Amino acid sequence: MRVANLSGRAVLLADDGGGAIDIAEAGGGRFPADPQALYEVWDELRDWAPGAPSAAAVPYDQARLRAPAPAPRQIFAIGVNYRDHAEESGIDVGDRPDRPPVFTKFVTCLTGQDARVALPKDGLTDWETELVVVIGRRAAGVAAEDAWDHVAGVTVGQDLSERLTQLAPPQPQQYSLGKSYPGFGPMGPWLVTPDEFGDPDDLEIGCDLNGERMQHARTKDMIFSVPQLLEVLSAVAPLLPGDAIFTGTPAGIGGTRTPPRFLAPGDRLESFVEGVGTLRTSFVEA
Amino acid sequence: MRVANLSGRAVLLADDGGGAIDIAEAGGGRFPADPQALYEVWDELRDWAPGAPSAAAVPYDQARLRAPAPAPRQIFAIGVNYRDHAEESGIDVGDRPDRPPVFTKFVTCLTGQDARVALPKDGLTDWETELVVVIGRRAAGVAAEDAWDHVAGVTVGQDLSERLTQLAPPQPQQYSLGKSYPGFGPMGPWLVTPDEFGDPDDLEIGCDLNGERMQHARTKDMIFSVPQLLEVLSAVAPLLPGDAIFTGTPAGIGGTRTPPRFLAPGDRLESFVEGVGTLRTSFVEA
Repeated sequence: MRVANLSGRAVLLADDGGGAIDIAEAGGGRFPADPQALYEVWDELRDWAPGAPSAAAVPYDQARLRAPAPAPRQIFAIGVNYRDHAEESGIDVGDRPDRPPVFTKFVTCLTGQDARVALPKDGLTDWETELVVVIGRRAAGVAAEDAWDHVAGVTVGQDLSERLTQLAPPQPQQYSLGKSYPGFGPMGPWLVTPDEFGDPDDLEIGCDLNGERMQHARTKDMIFSVPQLLEVLSAVAPLLPGDAIFTGTPAGIGGTRTPPRFLAPGDRLESFVEGVGTLRTSFVEA
Repeated sequence: MRVANLSGRAVLLADDGGGAIDIAEAGGGRFPADPQALYEVWDELRDWAPGAPSAAAVPYDQARLRAPAPAPRQIFAIGVNYRDHAEESGIDVGDRPDRPPVFTKFVTCLTGQDARVALPKDGLTDWETELVVVIGRRAAGVAAEDAWDHVAGVTVGQDLSERLTQLAPPQPQQYSLGKSYPGFGPMGPWLVTPDEFGDPDDLEIGCDLNGERMQHARTKDMIFSVPQLLEVLSAVAPLLPGDAIFTGTPAGIGGTRTPPRFLAPGDRLESFVEGVGTLRTSFVEA
């Protein structure tokens, strides 16, 4: 099942990409039109969706797709969750840390497919392609083996990062602000439920910048897998329906290249996750 | 003007502490009952409140006061914002950093007056008394001199912190998770508007643990004042009505004492801000 946010309304997308079914209309009042509110009734949606009237599907324009979870109450973002990215960043994670670094992206930074993101003036803005998980059922103290039951679905995310703000002294560095400029949280183009994947813990992930491959990895190489992240996070804070987790980026960011490379006006960033699709973002002057 | 969240309904509090006026009822439909939604119409509330019918005030129990902003879309928390606390923490902030460390407290940790907070098992939980600011008017790119116009009011906060999780390796430390256990964000007992203070940038602040003074400072000693914080934050992320800012704690936390002191079941923490009041929290076993 694929669910999307089409101009602010929750839609089901037909598997062949042929059209969108308005969930509130087709559901005859059972479901909210608001894509964020839909996560409150996710289990009901999953029961209903297979029988949704496919005749109600209408063509749509991908440029109208917004963030599938546009207003999470909590956005968790994970740092250094791939060993090769930790290495390129000069961070020693040891054999196996107890916990990953957890920060937030403030909600005003979220956006969706085909966003045009303004690059902060005098900043150094970098790309980070990530698998994003959205919660479908409240999770407090869940064990890893039960974690996928609490996931509504996954999507593609870009944890855009202005490095000067992110890494500004004094210590201790707190990532959240530099990763929260307007438009710095693209996610989409749609949400795909876990049952659509052979193994949701092993997905190809990567990105192309102006057609050049920059990141390429598999999510099985995460230091903390999605189930382990849900266990670690929900041991502290209850995860609520519609909450989002940016799960960390693999190697291939711009700032650690020789010479460093940062985003410039006119750049096009395309991030992909196997079985989900491609999230496209373009960059403009502030 | 003092505004509070009384069992989930927005109320005005009479200046003498004598009673509470239900804002939705007294306003005759102009205002929402939901304390969080009230910040969306804050300017109208400020115009209306001076003429609110004082006869509608009814006695109330302080133990029924919840967080004055129970569900902010964004919670900003500031690290090392008092020089004496930076020193006790062994953090060199230099002459004047460009930006303070900014993290979040995840919203599920918020609570109000007289909360009983469970101490995480095998944890080391510390206290941090803070001035908390709540936004009353959207702020994007505001200058410090205009910042107070965007503030609904201030209240007392406790940035409770489980230090093992907060400071767990690997670097870079991200504070957010260890400061977000359930109940780790008490705020209250009510919100006081900036016009109630002679100088809202110079308030006495502190706390007593079981009657013993632990923190005592003035908010004028913040490295980044409230107006400067709004300027720095809103230069990146738009601040929305109802957003909360925990502005940092002065010296006197437990973890850096000799010997270190952490919260234990049965402890009572009373935090105060001049012109606001006292926020009381007690601690129990998990």
